[in-house]
Amino acid sequence: MSQDGEDHAMESKEGETNMAAWLLGIKTLKIQPYHLPPLGPHDVKVRVKALGICGSDIHHFKTMRCANFIVKKPMVIVHECAGVIEEVGSEVKSLDVGDCVALEPGISCRQCTLCKSGRYNLCPKMKFFGSPPTNGSLANKVVHPADLCYKLPENVSLEEGAMCEPLSVGVHACRRANVSPETNVLIMGAGPIGLVTLLTARAFGAPRIVITDVDDRRLSIAKSLGADKTVLVSTNIEDVSVDVGEVQKAMGSDIDVSFDCVGYNKTMSTALNATRSGGKVCLIGLAQSEMTAPLTPAAAREVDIIGIFRYRNTWPLSIELLRTGKIDVKPLITHRFGFSQKDINAAFETSAGGGNAIKVMFNL
Amino acid sequence: MSQDGEDHAMESKEGETNMAAWLLGIKTLKIQPYHLPPLGPHDVKVRVKALGICGSDIHHFKTMRCANFIVKKPMVIVHECAGVIEEVGSEVKSLDVGDCVALEPGISCRQCTLCKSGRYNLCPKMKFFGSPPTNGSLANKVVHPADLCYKLPENVSLEEGAMCEPLSVGVHACRRANVSPETNVLIMGAGPIGLVTLLTARAFGAPRIVITDVDDRRLSIAKSLGADKTVLVSTNIEDVSVDVGEVQKAMGSDIDVSFDCVGYNKTMSTALNATRSGGKVCLIGLAQSEMTAPLTPAAAREVDIIGIFRYRNTWPLSIELLRTGKIDVKPLITHRFGFSQKDINAAFETSAGGGNAIKVMFNL
Amino acid sequence: MSQDGEDHAMESKEGETNMAAWLLGIKTLKIQPYHLPPLGPHDVKVRVKALGICGSDIHHFKTMRCANFIVKKPMVIVHECAGVIEEVGSEVKSLDVGDCVALEPGISCRQCTLCKSGRYNLCPKMKFFGSPPTNGSLANKVVHPADLCYKLPENVSLEEGAMCEPLSVGVHACRRANVSPETNVLIMGAGPIGLVTLLTARAFGAPRIVITDVDDRRLSIAKSLGADKTVLVSTNIEDVSVDVGEVQKAMGSDIDVSFDCVGYNKTMSTALNATRSGGKVCLIGLAQSEMTAPLTPAAAREVDIIGIFRYRNTWPLSIELLRTGKIDVKPLITHRFGFSQKDINAAFETSAGGGNAIKVMFNL
Amino acid sequence: MSQDGEDHAMESKEGETNMAAWLLGIKTLKIQPYHLPPLGPHDVKVRVKALGICGSDIHHFKTMRCANFIVKKPMVIVHECAGVIEEVGSEVKSLDVGDCVALEPGISCRQCTLCKSGRYNLCPKMKFFGSPPTNGSLANKVVHPADLCYKLPENVSLEEGAMCEPLSVGVHACRRANVSPETNVLIMGAGPIGLVTLLTARAFGAPRIVITDVDDRRLSIAKSLGADKTVLVSTNIEDVSVDVGEVQKAMGSDIDVSFDCVGYNKTMSTALNATRSGGKVCLIGLAQSEMTAPLTPAAAREVDIIGIFRYRNTWPLSIELLRTGKIDVKPLITHRFGFSQKDINAAFETSAGGGNAIKVMFNL
Repeated sequence: MSQDGEDHAMESKEGETNMAAWLLGIKTLKIQPYHLPPLGPHDVKVRVKALGICGSDIHHFKTMRCANFIVKKPMVIVHECAGVIEEVGSEVKSLDVGDCVALEPGISCRQCTLCKSGRYNLCPKMKFFGSPPTNGSLANKVVHPADLCYKLPENVSLEEGAMCEPLSVGVHACRRANVSPETNVLIMGAGPIGLVTLLTARAFGAPRIVITDVDDRRLSIAKSLGADKTVLVSTNIEDVSVDVGEVQKAMGSDIDVSFDCVGYNKTMSTALNATRSGGKVCLIGLAQSEMTAPLTPAAAREVDIIGIFRYRNTWPLSIELLRTGKIDVKPLITHRFGFSQKDINAAFETSAGGGNAIKVMFNL
Repeated sequence: MSQDGEDHAMESKEGETNMAAWLLGIKTLKIQPYHLPPLGPHDVKVRVKALGICGSDIHHFKTMRCANFIVKKPMVIVHECAGVIEEVGSEVKSLDVGDCVALEPGISCRQCTLCKSGRYNLCPKMKFFGSPPTNGSLANKVVHPADLCYKLPENVSLEEGAMCEPLSVGVHACRRANVSPETNVLIMGAGPIGLVTLLTARAFGAPRIVITDVDDRRLSIAKSLGADKTVLVSTNIEDVSVDVGEVQKAMGSDIDVSFDCVGYNKTMSTALNATRSGGKVCLIGLAQSEMTAPLTPAAAREVDIIGIFRYRNTWPLSIELLRTGKIDVKPLITHRFGFSQKDINAAFETSAGGGNAIKVMFNL
Repeated sequence: MSQDGEDHAMESKEGETNMAAWLLGIKTLKIQPYHLPPLGPHDVKVRVKALGICGSDIHHFKTMRCANFIVKKPMVIVHECAGVIEEVGSEVKSLDVGDCVALEPGISCRQCTLCKSGRYNLCPKMKFFGSPPTNGSLANKVVHPADLCYKLPENVSLEEGAMCEPLSVGVHACRRANVSPETNVLIMGAGPIGLVTLLTARAFGAPRIVITDVDDRRLSIAKSLGADKTVLVSTNIEDVSVDVGEVQKAMGSDIDVSFDCVGYNKTMSTALNATRSGGKVCLIGLAQSEMTAPLTPAAAREVDIIGIFRYRNTWPLSIELLRTGKIDVKPLITHRFGFSQKDINAAFETSAGGGNAIKVMFNL
Repeated sequence: MSQDGEDHAMESKEGETNMAAWLLGIKTLKIQPYHLPPLGPHDVKVRVKALGICGSDIHHFKTMRCANFIVKKPMVIVHECAGVIEEVGSEVKSLDVGDCVALEPGISCRQCTLCKSGRYNLCPKMKFFGSPPTNGSLANKVVHPADLCYKLPENVSLEEGAMCEPLSVGVHACRRANVSPETNVLIMGAGPIGLVTLLTARAFGAPRIVITDVDDRRLSIAKSLGADKTVLVSTNIEDVSVDVGEVQKAMGSDIDVSFDCVGYNKTMSTALNATRSGGKVCLIGLAQSEMTAPLTPAAAREVDIIGIFRYRNTWPLSIELLRTGKIDVKPLITHRFGFSQKDINAAFETSAGGGNAIKVMFNL
């Protein structure tokens, strides 16, 4: 369909001029021409207006890889985006020119068993914006399947539309964990994913939410976003039992579901030990590949470990949560940049620098 | 109700003489009097006829402890049993004197949230035969709640009745893993629990079952019990990727569910890597408490880890599977003993000795 | 345990004097002595403080029957109640004298398959306050199992405690229907059950709720309690397709779950036709036993029909929803009475009279 | 993609000659040229070898309609088919020329919410062989998406491949009802759908299966296919309570799941009343649109009614059940015909005539 790594070209061979930010090497991003693929009957052409930088983009920027994905040739990066429809394919009936849309970045094959059984996020043939070798969306325009472009209601901005992507991770996790008004939630880690999980768990009705981090500033933000209690923790693995005691005390009630949004031995160990018998631990963070954790004591209390990979069918709900005001993602947007060469360099340095940046956003 | 550790007495204070095998110290079992508690209105008195020795009994026998449970004072051990009803309480309508029954060994509180929501196996107040401080059932008679004594049909023997207990572990695991005619199953470990899981997965319709072990004799038994393929593995953690390749090749198709019936770093690592995206790994074996395994790569393929603790509501189905012949547990019974002091010592030494013993059974 | 119809006595045989409202015949309620059963080790004695009248009480009051339950001898009625602990049994550790508690009115057998699998509301041996032949709780005091008495936090009143019973119907229905922030809800009927379902669906996150009734006043109340849209409907079965069109238009989006809180041919037909493919219809109302409705067209769109009977494990969540202010049941309490003979007659007449009464409450 | 009603042509405009059986009017089928659509990159061309006649084909044949679907212009009918791959599209990697395949007849849009959440059988844009206005597969050749053509193993014949379609209805129903080794099954109706449900329920492990019909010959077939008990019933609605008693007696145990493969007031009423509290009734048969049945008494026992529409993701399992011999569909094939004009007329008359025909098959 579109955006395939095979199709990219450093120069526009035909048609209109489109510029994109190409990752050429470690910490080397250059704005260069980007040839748009032809518009298929079920595709739309989108003028990109808002994009957010994700942790995986920073990994690509700093190291030319992320987990098992390696950037082997120049690639347009970034995948959190929203824009305005500029042209629609011949079969597209759901969208019109001028519509504001949020883009779901992954195009699954729609034909394999996983796709047809509704778990398309696990499709082995997924083509995902900015995940090698598929080009991303940090460009003036992209071509994308219409059914992956979701119309934004009037009271949801394009920046909020771009935020549907990280928000989708929280939605998918809360769905898989079956968070409801009777789920007391522990969140390990108050980074961007921990924070969207916090917002989503609250929107799903979680009555009590405790969140931990090693950074007090992040915990302040979590508190301001609605966490009931925050717990400052160390990185010392010896402190697991202390942490378990503190998060349980902070909850003051059974912990039904824990989200490990970090993925270290220590966060996972704390989550497994702190969660009540019959509860669930959702593993979202991927900091360590091999992990050492007390798996059998947790298994013997039937604490299940639920894996989370991206999301599926989450845009409509994410937009609805924004529309109804149940979730406000605007406080997460801490920095904004334009689309000049200078802006791009500054934006990535801001995001990579840590500091007080949560979400760094481009406005095109 | 009954069998509480608080109630035990080395000598019968009143009523009939009842003898039991008391664990007095490491490898020291003695047949001594065992005072039966009074028969409550919902209880039955059972003349015990068949008992099997479980791995946890061997742990108690050898070390006076099993996992976190410690034997602090003399205790009757063993919990896999069946017998004949000798007396029924005033309110018991479901059973009659002379009925052959299999006994579910755990008495839950019936009042906590976990009990009332159907997950009584996780009840924190569980009183379980032979789990300290609750006395077990290696005795001439026991008093037990009638609703935990399940009538055996004519074509199911008392020995098979006693086998309902280990079989229940397989049933609970296959239920939690949702094994069905479309579930290709990998089993790590061909010990007693691996073998009952094999029998149960087949009865639940699993079309392809591959089983691994480090012991070729055990694999032969697994093969004779219906495993489609067996894979001999090493204990060397370096071989994980080799093992993954071999079990996947043996399956010749996606592995939907893996049961780790061992619980070592290596078995868990193999299971996590070998299972298909979106599949499940059930952790039953508890060999290691802290485990090191590739949790995040599995989570990123949404391979969930399901914990298994004992069982719940499994006797009716276990008996039905035996009645209909879908499962034959008789080949698992390799040794039989009586109830003399000499027999008891020999039985425990046989079971503890490893060798070719699978299930060692007492006939009283 | 307690409250069994077998145990009732018109005169206190021993111990303290306790008075209760006995249903002696059609529309004949008399305050007479009520002998309390002995306090079992797991029981508590509760001084009753607040009670609500339910539609089933009115059926008993008017006709000496409700559905298949027939009042054959004098019986204490009413089952929605809360009170203060006056005495605790020897084994009770969770409650103290002076605690304010809401009472779950049904005592299940705790031993049958349904109880042990967590569906105790379907227990065939259920003893339920005020459901023949079990006496109810319109009395100064009752004896009840401690685990069915739920402690109220400081900010939840005894009247709100009594309201946990009708609220539990909404909670059970929303749980069975899996209502979440992505469930658009249609409710047929704005009587007490329709209204608690509305409140609960909102608390479970339902973004859009449409409610119907034949009575405009009830719809006004529903609107004031948070319904997004109300639709006034007729009782004319010919109007089903008109109603379907109107509720769909009012929703402005797919109807995911419909709750039929009435149970007439017309409400059920509208619900079945209006619900989206793959959605659910929950049947709560029981107005008609035999129903005529378009079942096969609904089945061919996989609209499932979910049956709802009372509730299970709902008090903790109901209390939590009241504690956190996610649900406010106080507007549903429209009338209050004391516990004199005159009060009782007036209260039942008020409740039976229809008019603007929603919930009629006794304060003792 | 292909087979759209829009594309049909009475005469081949280009390319090879292909003949098909066109339904021109009531009971009027004619073999005439059928223009094949172009082969898309993900399509295959299949030489059709085996086709079965379904009840819906007979409805079309006799009345030019089935349920709400009306045949408004000449249409190729029939949808149960298997064949041999003759050509593959440029992107097809899973199939080769010469492969024997079973065809899943419905092409969903792959883009709507229902498709992307795995419930594609409910897709509102479904194009389904022989369901107006989409042409069917009673033709020498068809073009079809490769992912809907499932390769048959060596020991599964093309006729069995065609039988995967009716078998899929049983598979989908048993999946939705969660049939397992602990599900006692009642089946109302021993026609083709009742019989495949019987075979599938057995393959899913159902320990006891009782089946009813008004026709003794059909019950004999059911018995020979493995039903444990058969019950001959009347069509008299007055006999519901008698039937309930008889099926319950025949089961000799709780009925967990009932499949109504007929869809009359009487079969549904019997199913609802006979099923245990907390059980399920699956409505597959569609004989009556409006039904009168005791819905509220069933709801008050939480007997849920599950709708069944066609199937989804069922071919791999159906083929596996045939491959492993867990299901043998060959006894269901009672008549065979060729593809001449005379054969087609005879085949449809045989199938429409009732008598002892179960499945009438074409061999091309």
